[in-house]
Amino acid sequence: MPHPMIDQQDAWQALAAHARKMRTTHLGELFSNAPGRHAAFTRRAAGLTLDLSKQRWRDETLERLLALAREAEVPEAIRALLAGERVNRSEDRPALHTALRLPPEESLVVEGEDLVPAVHATLARMATMVERFHAGQWRGATGRAIRDVVNLGVGGSDLGPLMVTHALADYRPEGVHTIGVHFASTMDGSQLADYLSRLNPETTLFVLSSKSFTTIDTLSNARTARDWLMARLMGENREEGVDAELVMRQHFIGLSASPEKMHEWGIADEHQLAFWEWVGGRYSLWGAIGLPIALVVGMDHFRALLAGAHAMDRHFSEAPLSDNLPVLLALAGIWNVNFLDIRAHSILPYDGRLEYFAAYLEQLEMESNGKSVTHDGREVGYSTCPVLWGQLGPNAQHAFYQLLHQGTQSVECDFIAPKVRYDDVADPATRDHLMGQHRLTLANCFAQSRVLMLGDKAIKEDGPRPVYKHYRGNQPSSTLLLDRLTPATLGSLIALYEHKVFVQATIWDINPFDQWGVELGKQIAGETQRILEHQADIADMDDSTRGLIEAVWSAERGS
Amino acid sequence: MPHPMIDQQDAWQALAAHARKMRTTHLGELFSNAPGRHAAFTRRAAGLTLDLSKQRWRDETLERLLALAREAEVPEAIRALLAGERVNRSEDRPALHTALRLPPEESLVVEGEDLVPAVHATLARMATMVERFHAGQWRGATGRAIRDVVNLGVGGSDLGPLMVTHALADYRPEGVHTIGVHFASTMDGSQLADYLSRLNPETTLFVLSSKSFTTIDTLSNARTARDWLMARLMGENREEGVDAELVMRQHFIGLSASPEKMHEWGIADEHQLAFWEWVGGRYSLWGAIGLPIALVVGMDHFRALLAGAHAMDRHFSEAPLSDNLPVLLALAGIWNVNFLDIRAHSILPYDGRLEYFAAYLEQLEMESNGKSVTHDGREVGYSTCPVLWGQLGPNAQHAFYQLLHQGTQSVECDFIAPKVRYDDVADPATRDHLMGQHRLTLANCFAQSRVLMLGDKAIKEDGPRPVYKHYRGNQPSSTLLLDRLTPATLGSLIALYEHKVFVQATIWDINPFDQWGVELGKQIAGETQRILEHQADIADMDDSTRGLIEAVWSAERGS
Repeated sequence: MPHPMIDQQDAWQALAAHARKMRTTHLGELFSNAPGRHAAFTRRAAGLTLDLSKQRWRDETLERLLALAREAEVPEAIRALLAGERVNRSEDRPALHTALRLPPEESLVVEGEDLVPAVHATLARMATMVERFHAGQWRGATGRAIRDVVNLGVGGSDLGPLMVTHALADYRPEGVHTIGVHFASTMDGSQLADYLSRLNPETTLFVLSSKSFTTIDTLSNARTARDWLMARLMGENREEGVDAELVMRQHFIGLSASPEKMHEWGIADEHQLAFWEWVGGRYSLWGAIGLPIALVVGMDHFRALLAGAHAMDRHFSEAPLSDNLPVLLALAGIWNVNFLDIRAHSILPYDGRLEYFAAYLEQLEMESNGKSVTHDGREVGYSTCPVLWGQLGPNAQHAFYQLLHQGTQSVECDFIAPKVRYDDVADPATRDHLMGQHRLTLANCFAQSRVLMLGDKAIKEDGPRPVYKHYRGNQPSSTLLLDRLTPATLGSLIALYEHKVFVQATIWDINPFDQWGVELGKQIAGETQRILEHQADIADMDDSTRGLIEAVWSAERGS
Repeated sequence: MPHPMIDQQDAWQALAAHARKMRTTHLGELFSNAPGRHAAFTRRAAGLTLDLSKQRWRDETLERLLALAREAEVPEAIRALLAGERVNRSEDRPALHTALRLPPEESLVVEGEDLVPAVHATLARMATMVERFHAGQWRGATGRAIRDVVNLGVGGSDLGPLMVTHALADYRPEGVHTIGVHFASTMDGSQLADYLSRLNPETTLFVLSSKSFTTIDTLSNARTARDWLMARLMGENREEGVDAELVMRQHFIGLSASPEKMHEWGIADEHQLAFWEWVGGRYSLWGAIGLPIALVVGMDHFRALLAGAHAMDRHFSEAPLSDNLPVLLALAGIWNVNFLDIRAHSILPYDGRLEYFAAYLEQLEMESNGKSVTHDGREVGYSTCPVLWGQLGPNAQHAFYQLLHQGTQSVECDFIAPKVRYDDVADPATRDHLMGQHRLTLANCFAQSRVLMLGDKAIKEDGPRPVYKHYRGNQPSSTLLLDRLTPATLGSLIALYEHKVFVQATIWDINPFDQWGVELGKQIAGETQRILEHQADIADMDDSTRGLIEAVWSAERGS
């Protein structure tokens, strides 16, 4: 007989009863009745400070949530994850992104093999490649040093490196040959076409980044890039000695879990970086897929990113549940989604360098936990992952905060900011000016979470206001402060969210490491493409799809 | 006595009863029971084809929704909007973005004044400016032609121009002096600092874009830009005759509804483009705020954009409700939000040129309809604007589609794509290659909406599948095909969504044209900033805000 589902167990039922009382309590009341609430709900680890006092909960709530975590065997799940057990059950393999950031002196024996030496061998190969670029010694087919690298990848092979290179652009090493790193992901060739119109083929290299090396979006772009290089480097004005093999070798690097497929495509063996099936695409920036990051910030900073993530891994492994940042962040989400019926979650960084962080988390959270079947194959009767979206906070203030303040939807918000910035700027006048801009940004961050919490009570009343100026408040939020934004704290920030997702998946009893929901779409797309290209019969399609395809055919004939 | 609220009226009540029956009907069943469903639910106007057959409704539903629209007096509201009545009641003014796209031969007399001549006078001034840039005759203080223009603006002064210039980048006019147009919006100076490190002050001009000309985000960046220009153009190596006045005149343009404030800031009178209080920020790309668009695509294409929007305005005004695209799109949303309890809406363009379209709509919809108070000041008891987010469809397939297919949240999706693309590429081999990439993209678009609709039934079964490979389907979507993506169809696409928002606001009885929800945040941010800068007392703050501010102070002391 299967064990009862989590929402049938004691801890969940107790929370449901508790929630019926809490639902009518305004967040503002929780503050007025509890001095010291900030300290009571704030925890620190690995350069991060997490203030959960603006969640709609009190001590009793958190205690009950911790009981739920224990009932769902979160501590055992954490141990199993980090030990390399086969926690990805539908694909029968471990999920070992944490192994990618273990220091060289540690060991992790999984199914008889110590993974750490292999991980560090890959890092050493990356370092050799990066050094060659940074010394101006990686040369294109005509002998000129490579100056631009275009990453061709999508999903996990795009969002992680894109987000991190943007966030750490201040950390470019000095005194090295500078490499411009660009990202092209869209299937229709739009972004790539733009780069090709601006870049010089003699000094441009493409990184093909795809775990399976079968992603059609990426391979379409790769073919376009190859044609472009061949036409320009092998055309009428070709230099002596430039042949297709040389172009392939000097202008392509492959990052994949499939060396065979890289080889087939023509990537030179010595310009491949392979990784392992046990690294999920959306968890893969820590190894080979991180090459574009290392090209921008250098290997020392890349290793600092890994060290920051490892510090969070250790905290996750060692801290008691009640002080454990990923666990607490996860429990806040569970409370909102499952007990307060809040189905949307907004990610709001107050630092322009984190421009792509929300898009990164959209994948991490929704692809991991957008599931509805338990490990043992039963449909859940409760909500799992909420809709998650975001934008730089100051910009979103001018866009969708209206809905947060005065709309009818309840939304949980994560505010993220570094405490200090710009204090290392050399010129004193510029430094003061920029530090002032940073304080202005922090002031907006704190003010918004305060108004979302208190609503009208945040205002010093100066007379009656019309009803359309009323603010309901009572929107819960977390505030996450980085001591400053460095490779190390960015690493721990990302790892914090990775582990948060894992804890939630554990409580929901779902597998965060597979993504079967994207497979069927790929299959049907191939079928639809054959019909569009008149290579298959349209009759099997539904009426809408038929109508849409015929509209395209008709437009093609008329054009 | 006030009129009964909309959810207490007959049409709404009838819909609620109808919804109880419909809720248990799977979208797949609706298709199997109704041949010809595509034709029955598809409408065309202004270069757009809208297929609403994949909504979870049937003929009776739509009839009842049309009755709701009539009961909410949508036809009268459309007439009032387009006639320039004071539909923005909390601010007591009309909302006349449609006037910005009236052709010169028409007239629109509002409160005794014909607005059309003034609108076209502004367009003529824009044209003169654009011609000067495109002739290489707009010169910086040192006499060199301006080559780069940086738009400083946020919210409506950023998202519209950014989205459109990106979408229409293929429409740059030939044979003109090329202007690089860039956008800096973030308050913390991150984006601007990046541009300043790359651009030449002698050939760079800044457009200050702010309806009120008091937006602190934009003015902070403007001050930084001014300091940068002055330090570099007026420093030790200054050329003879270069003074501060010349720098201000040749390197700044102001776009605002406040000529006084532009003048105060130092914008030369002849380099101001003013617009009207009756143009909302998020509806403002059609006039002065569209200058960056015209700088990229030229005035002819800018006028084509206006003409496309005007074609949609005419359709909106003249078509019967049952054929009216904005009305139908709005009703689909109302059905999902208010009767099927679907609280999230995803915008999924299948064309890389529409990369910023979802971000644009996030503001348009959530800032307009993130409201909960009726025109006469009563709290609504029903949902208004859902959470809206999106991403390029092919990229989102590798990110959050997992949640759409197998998560627990119901989400409405808008799929958007041009029917034809790349057929005008000169080289036949390249053309075939690119048209193939476009068909691949369309195939993905159609396949995804099909799987979202049918779930498992979209698969030709080849044996039993494990439960984690099951797809529920039943996610409603609309598909919007553009004949092709041109200035005109982009104009009508944007106008379609503007009017959809207005129709929904009319039914919900809320004001889509104000944004009081963002005002309080600004006020509190000023107060918080004074505390952070030690110019005010922290004691009035709540415990969390105090804790966060003290954490920053402590970090500043330690740094």
